[in-house]
Amino acid sequence: MTRGRPPASGLSTAAAFRLSQYLRCIPANADAGTISSSILADFVGVSDAQVRRDIAALGHLGQRGVGYDAATLRDAIRRTLGIDRKWTAVLVGVGNLARALLRYRGFQTQGFDIVALFDSDVTKVGQTVEGHTVLPHEQMAARVQALKVELGVITVPAEAAQSVADVLCGAGIKGLLNFAPMLLRVPSKVSLVSVDLSVQFEQLAFLVGTARS
Amino acid sequence: MTRGRPPASGLSTAAAFRLSQYLRCIPANADAGTISSSILADFVGVSDAQVRRDIAALGHLGQRGVGYDAATLRDAIRRTLGIDRKWTAVLVGVGNLARALLRYRGFQTQGFDIVALFDSDVTKVGQTVEGHTVLPHEQMAARVQALKVELGVITVPAEAAQSVADVLCGAGIKGLLNFAPMLLRVPSKVSLVSVDLSVQFEQLAFLVGTARS
Repeated sequence: MTRGRPPASGLSTAAAFRLSQYLRCIPANADAGTISSSILADFVGVSDAQVRRDIAALGHLGQRGVGYDAATLRDAIRRTLGIDRKWTAVLVGVGNLARALLRYRGFQTQGFDIVALFDSDVTKVGQTVEGHTVLPHEQMAARVQALKVELGVITVPAEAAQSVADVLCGAGIKGLLNFAPMLLRVPSKVSLVSVDLSVQFEQLAFLVGTARS
Repeated sequence: MTRGRPPASGLSTAAAFRLSQYLRCIPANADAGTISSSILADFVGVSDAQVRRDIAALGHLGQRGVGYDAATLRDAIRRTLGIDRKWTAVLVGVGNLARALLRYRGFQTQGFDIVALFDSDVTKVGQTVEGHTVLPHEQMAARVQALKVELGVITVPAEAAQSVADVLCGAGIKGLLNFAPMLLRVPSKVSLVSVDLSVQFEQLAFLVGTARS
């Protein structure tokens, strides 16, 4: 997906993260109206200058004192992040977390086009979960290859995560979203985002401790 | 909680995040043995120099060519992050995500001491989930105050999240871990870590798009 990708290919991961956050300040139905850099700055907790720099990197989207056209800004951010289209994805490991993700606002409707669910538990295979039939683990590689699936979401226990990642990478997956609490090793051509919920807890403990010390 | 907090009170959030990641490279039973900065660097994906700087900020923990004593390093990181003790916490919103969290490795055993679960759904109130009885939403403020609960985990739908945060902050909570897909407003004295799963997806889309462009 390179269409429409602006000069922002040099965008840092941190800047991309801030763009995601700005996006959350723009109502989905904001087809009219403007939004100011100070509102975005206040909402996300960064400086006004930072917001203006981040948005300037997307092209000419606003002028001083007037603010940004909300719909134009939203489209520019979505294009820059590469979420102006659907991404095909499989989800591996159909437990509570997977069920929560499949129901999560925006997970299916906004970006992920989940094309298959897999589990190694024979009692789960064949079940229908949020409209998808759970397929056996053994079919994973063949399906991912046949459907040219782009992204994989890993919600298996930690001890199974690396082997699942290996199968998905071997089958040509381009990116992984890993929820298993461990660091995965993947080939350099595969993008990896890990969400380790205990890391989030540690960050909170650190912040609370710092705030009080 | 200020006991044992080292010079690291000036530690940045980014550095604290890296410390969390280093911690994941040290086996829990690593009571003997050393670990080198290059192993940590390779595992986490940062430079060797970055690892040495981060660990130097914790005090004198290693010497060149020998590596760090694994157990000492682990203890120093845990102390710095403030996870060398339990934190009392309540969880609000008992859906699939909450159930996944309560079963998540490390969530209860390593840091959170969950003292109560709350839900506004009368059909859930009274149920036992992972050993805890679900209490009615109305008891939340009184319980948090009475038990001097430190942290709150918010796993309610987006539209309910701000009102839950308001109640918890009003009852004296010190930090919130928010899973609802929205930006919460909290008083400046309350620490907030938000885990917006659709932001994680957007980061992955961005990385995959960048890798291919």
